Amino acid sequence: MNKEYHIAVVGASGVVGRTIIEVLEEHELPISNLQLFASARSAGKTIPFRGEDIVIEELTEESLQSPIQIAIFSAGGDTSKKYAPIAAANGVTVIDNSSAFRMDENKKLIVPEINGKILTTEDKIIANPNCSTIQSVLPIAVIHDKYSIERIVYSTYQAVSGAGQAGISDLENGTTENFQYPIVETVIPQIDVFQDNGYTKEEEKMINETHKILGDTNIGVTATCVRVPIKTSHAVSINIQTTKSFDIDEIREFLANTPGITVIDDIENNRYPLQHEAAGKDDVFVGRIRRDHSIENGLNLFVVSDNLRKGAATNSVQIAEQLIALDLV
Amino acid sequence: MNKEYHIAVVGASGVVGRTIIEVLEEHELPISNLQLFASARSAGKTIPFRGEDIVIEELTEESLQSPIQIAIFSAGGDTSKKYAPIAAANGVTVIDNSSAFRMDENKKLIVPEINGKILTTEDKIIANPNCSTIQSVLPIAVIHDKYSIERIVYSTYQAVSGAGQAGISDLENGTTENFQYPIVETVIPQIDVFQDNGYTKEEEKMINETHKILGDTNIGVTATCVRVPIKTSHAVSINIQTTKSFDIDEIREFLANTPGITVIDDIENNRYPLQHEAAGKDDVFVGRIRRDHSIENGLNLFVVSDNLRKGAATNSVQIAEQLIALDLV
Repeated sequence: MNKEYHIAVVGASGVVGRTIIEVLEEHELPISNLQLFASARSAGKTIPFRGEDIVIEELTEESLQSPIQIAIFSAGGDTSKKYAPIAAANGVTVIDNSSAFRMDENKKLIVPEINGKILTTEDKIIANPNCSTIQSVLPIAVIHDKYSIERIVYSTYQAVSGAGQAGISDLENGTTENFQYPIVETVIPQIDVFQDNGYTKEEEKMINETHKILGDTNIGVTATCVRVPIKTSHAVSINIQTTKSFDIDEIREFLANTPGITVIDDIENNRYPLQHEAAGKDDVFVGRIRRDHSIENGLNLFVVSDNLRKGAATNSVQIAEQLIALDLV
Repeated sequence: MNKEYHIAVVGASGVVGRTIIEVLEEHELPISNLQLFASARSAGKTIPFRGEDIVIEELTEESLQSPIQIAIFSAGGDTSKKYAPIAAANGVTVIDNSSAFRMDENKKLIVPEINGKILTTEDKIIANPNCSTIQSVLPIAVIHDKYSIERIVYSTYQAVSGAGQAGISDLENGTTENFQYPIVETVIPQIDVFQDNGYTKEEEKMINETHKILGDTNIGVTATCVRVPIKTSHAVSINIQTTKSFDIDEIREFLANTPGITVIDDIENNRYPLQHEAAGKDDVFVGRIRRDHSIENGLNLFVVSDNLRKGAATNSVQIAEQLIALDLV
């Protein structure tokens, strides 16, 4: 395939936007032209790509149209809601990192290793899932496929970079500019705003997006999402109950053989997934794989992944790669 | 009651030992004489108590005997195993913070609000539970009493001070003297050593001690224990399934009316338990109280408490207060 593509990144100056550009370069996508867009505030700044400095352009209603074929958005829900439909109407395929379209019945929510094959040329706006959800569902999909999952309990340990540059700054400077409480002195059991039912939006995302990606709303899912004073990579303590009985070594093997997953689970040498080791890598790291004896067919996992990479940028770029591989753009 | 008591603290120079001395002073225990013991390394140093400087003495086999009535140990399991039986044989009632006697069938494991009343004059060595367990079982005991608990899933967020001064130093200096990995860059899903079954000792403690304190081994319990880069106070995400159906407001009310518990659960104002707010306080703080819709009679809680206080020093001192109140020494 010698085809090359004209790609745009919307929200290029943000923490995720910059990571998308890095991953596009690392993954060596067949790109003929890369255009970068952001708000007026960032327009005129440059970002390096393949040895060249690309100037960021101000996003306008005219920005996203032919010859652009794919636009990867990471500029927040409001920007996505306004500009993604315009881009789609212009024939540009949008991969959207915001939560704007994730639960839209007419939009697909994609983790390429799990459901990338369901994409068609009809899909003009494709949603990229929530960061904590992506890294959790990747191992869960394997287990669900083999043993049928009845119930999942998530407790997360989420890095401050999930809140963007302001979150990183609060960690580095001990401030409370982004977080309401000092993240250097406490974990914060609130990510995003509260809903009437007592759950935060982040927790609801993990519940609803798990259902949608696995295509199975019968799975019981609950979540407690917590911010921790770590710069990069989210960790998730996952408790699972399956319908069918399993062999724990078989689960370890299935996970190890899944593309996108690296198993680190060598307790004799105190080896398990760690956030600083996952940072900058594309894979989802799974460890502490052990039977939960409190219930029949119970299983515990501890899952770590770079929230800016597989949790956002890498997954978006992989969706673009999938579009290209399936010749959908 | 004008009776006054001769009390000893063993391991007085450690992080927990110093907190015990602070709590003894704050709680105004009727103390006629306070003796402090530690290893030869700390002997000769002084610690203030009620405006006086008390000199730390070296612990020997002759240290713990009449007129000492109560000795509170916090000097590690080896010291407890060696010296607690000697003290007990000399008629001194030992309150032990180590794990040495917790699962001994002939020793009681006490959280005063839950089972302090079971103490008798026969109890010469009384075990103080693991820090994460204490703060978790306090709200759980109330719920178990009213609704009968079937299963508990714990995921912890434990402060570095649980690893003593060396743990605090690793956080403050970015070193790896105590922890194998840099705690400023990653949460660490290992506390204490691994067992053959894949669980850490800390996780097994939470499981076994929950059973023993509640006096009910039928409850399914599983745990994932994780160290986080916070100086003081542990947090625990607790998922519970009860046998009987419950009303969520009733649970909130029962918890709020339990001595030793403060409910902080006002999501309209983003109020929930936080580690820096719990630090230095005796109570267990409970919030994020909400129904888990993934299962019948499911419940989520987020529980925070100062691991050096209720998790160790305060609970030990409260056991001493119980011994005094019941006139057992």
